[in-house]
Amino acid sequence: MLRVLKFGGTSVGTLERIQSVAQIIKKFRDAGDDIVAVVSAMSGETNKLLEYAEHFSKTPNEAEVDMLLSSGERVTSALLSIALNEQGYNTTSMSGREAGIFTTSEHTYARIETIDTANMQNAIKEGKIIIVAGFQGVSVENSRVTTLGRGGSDLTAVALAGALQADLCEIYTDVDGIYTTDPRIEPKAKKLDKISYEEMLELASLGAKVLQNRSVEMAKKLNVNLVSRSSFTPEIEGTLITKEENIMEAPVVSGIALDKNQVRVGMYGVVDKPGIASSIFTALADANINVDMIVQTVGLDNKTNLDFTIPTADVQKATKVMENFKNDSQKIDYNDAICKVSIVGVGMKSHTGVASKAFTALASENINIRIISTSEIKISMIIEEKYAELAVRALHDAYELDK
Amino acid sequence: MLRVLKFGGTSVGTLERIQSVAQIIKKFRDAGDDIVAVVSAMSGETNKLLEYAEHFSKTPNEAEVDMLLSSGERVTSALLSIALNEQGYNTTSMSGREAGIFTTSEHTYARIETIDTANMQNAIKEGKIIIVAGFQGVSVENSRVTTLGRGGSDLTAVALAGALQADLCEIYTDVDGIYTTDPRIEPKAKKLDKISYEEMLELASLGAKVLQNRSVEMAKKLNVNLVSRSSFTPEIEGTLITKEENIMEAPVVSGIALDKNQVRVGMYGVVDKPGIASSIFTALADANINVDMIVQTVGLDNKTNLDFTIPTADVQKATKVMENFKNDSQKIDYNDAICKVSIVGVGMKSHTGVASKAFTALASENINIRIISTSEIKISMIIEEKYAELAVRALHDAYELDK
Repeated sequence: MLRVLKFGGTSVGTLERIQSVAQIIKKFRDAGDDIVAVVSAMSGETNKLLEYAEHFSKTPNEAEVDMLLSSGERVTSALLSIALNEQGYNTTSMSGREAGIFTTSEHTYARIETIDTANMQNAIKEGKIIIVAGFQGVSVENSRVTTLGRGGSDLTAVALAGALQADLCEIYTDVDGIYTTDPRIEPKAKKLDKISYEEMLELASLGAKVLQNRSVEMAKKLNVNLVSRSSFTPEIEGTLITKEENIMEAPVVSGIALDKNQVRVGMYGVVDKPGIASSIFTALADANINVDMIVQTVGLDNKTNLDFTIPTADVQKATKVMENFKNDSQKIDYNDAICKVSIVGVGMKSHTGVASKAFTALASENINIRIISTSEIKISMIIEEKYAELAVRALHDAYELDK
Repeated sequence: MLRVLKFGGTSVGTLERIQSVAQIIKKFRDAGDDIVAVVSAMSGETNKLLEYAEHFSKTPNEAEVDMLLSSGERVTSALLSIALNEQGYNTTSMSGREAGIFTTSEHTYARIETIDTANMQNAIKEGKIIIVAGFQGVSVENSRVTTLGRGGSDLTAVALAGALQADLCEIYTDVDGIYTTDPRIEPKAKKLDKISYEEMLELASLGAKVLQNRSVEMAKKLNVNLVSRSSFTPEIEGTLITKEENIMEAPVVSGIALDKNQVRVGMYGVVDKPGIASSIFTALADANINVDMIVQTVGLDNKTNLDFTIPTADVQKATKVMENFKNDSQKIDYNDAICKVSIVGVGMKSHTGVASKAFTALASENINIRIISTSEIKISMIIEEKYAELAVRALHDAYELDK
């Protein structure tokens, strides 16, 4: 079977760590697998290079930043190849160019356009383990080196796995998989064996440190079986992220996610003007503010209230936009002492009573729900921030996720 | 005019030094010159990467060593490009591949085969300052990254200057040119304005720290006007190394070179066997030992003595080879308490009495000459090592090189 393995910065952070990664690869190789490993720069290296660049310019030329940063992954790929070669394995490093990764010309945040797998296919045929410098490609337009932005090495791995039709794409970090919730909040949290792409995307806050949505989305699109596991404990299997139909007997609820970086905006006594809500949300969207949950209610006094949430980081921008609507309501306020708790699970689609169980669980802890929004596989609730951890634990218990 | 400038490791050793190099380039650019700058890795960087490789293998795969080491020069080229760009100059970095440098496939010591200047010519036409990552190219055969071995960045600069028919190729180091002799031995030593390729090659010991013979030879072959100067004192003009016919009124003697790394091998009472000398020197050549000066004398006793010099580093190898000839002479001894003093100058060709002036100068200091060898533009003498500095000063005076 063909495995694409990706090792991030901490996994290759020291020479000793690189040697450990070599052991992981050897084990698969000895079992007969073909291997394409994608590596990041040694941790700290990219930041060091960026600091160098910023010594000369606050806004360094982006094509040059790419030339600069891409060297970090090349170093790791050569070192890992040397380590394996020394132990008798037939290996070759490949830069993004050599791996056939062609991108757009948007330096520092290029998108992969096509992958020419010929060079890799040949190397695999020759029995070589391929070590690809992640995070980089070359511009289709002018053949200059490009980089893929945040999470670029993960993307490289997923894209190569897709292009090579690999059986598995394993993303190694220092976390051994995806948990039912954040184990720092609920020690009873359990590692999931399998989860669907859709659930993973909804559980972003649980996986953010491990997998970026951009990579999960590409894995879903290319139908790549993704595994999140740890290079520090390679004996632990990790979590498989795959198509929903690959998951037999999906549990009703897979996990509980928590997001504290939300601010609730309340507009009270909104004037009765057609399209007012639409113009507010259009203005916010134009300002690049990601409005998450929206609720419109009409009170006993027959007045309309509008509630919605935005990321904490966007409050200042939002306040400015909302200035334009201050005459359209009696009052606008911003509350950052709230958080969003989400229950995610593909099983919800075919089960009823999932939401009411959540409401009961929170009610029994005297936690008021301010806003509720539901999708096919997710129920999100805005509650007071001080109840965040209590709510997570109560919901984790209610759905028996520790079982 | 088109200038190729090369900045070595110490010239780009820190971010501050890179900024100074940017100033040098700016000055030429502001004066209207086209610029191709070739840069080395920041000093220490290449050794660090080699140590990393050696952590994994005593004999790391050489293709991977090239992948590894070539990243150092890429970093410097990007940083220098960023520095100039920030100051309003139109710049582009180029890897060896982007600069069109095609080499043989001998990793870690590849030779340049051809240079495709199209990409550079276009950039120059677009008014760009080009910053090339030195020391590297790509294999004609399989397109993998190669490096050029010791002095590889100098070679890159000379080869690019040749291919682009540049007016000048300036090699910047921390020394401001070629001196009549080592200033640490003779404080009256003077910097030469001009010197011929041939003299430079003979004065290798004076220029060793500054210019390697490999680069001078290529400059001579490609007819590149080479300049040795310092990036630490760019206001000083440096020494031009050029064709002999470009030097009007060449002085009789240009410089005095000293080489202490020689051992004199003496064979006494060599048997009268045809071809014995030839077989000895063939055996030494086969062992890759560079025999420098050879003198065969017949004494009053009618016995043949054979004297020659070899590099100190090769004594052990030579002793082994000479074992095979121990029955062909009465005695073989090795004397490392000797040194070689050389007088170099193209003017010698048309002047007589140059040698006798040297012999007189040394005789007046009571220095015995053990071996003498002469070429068209050089007189070399083996003397006792303890007289080395005294001899250099006496000869420097005799030829009035401080004038």
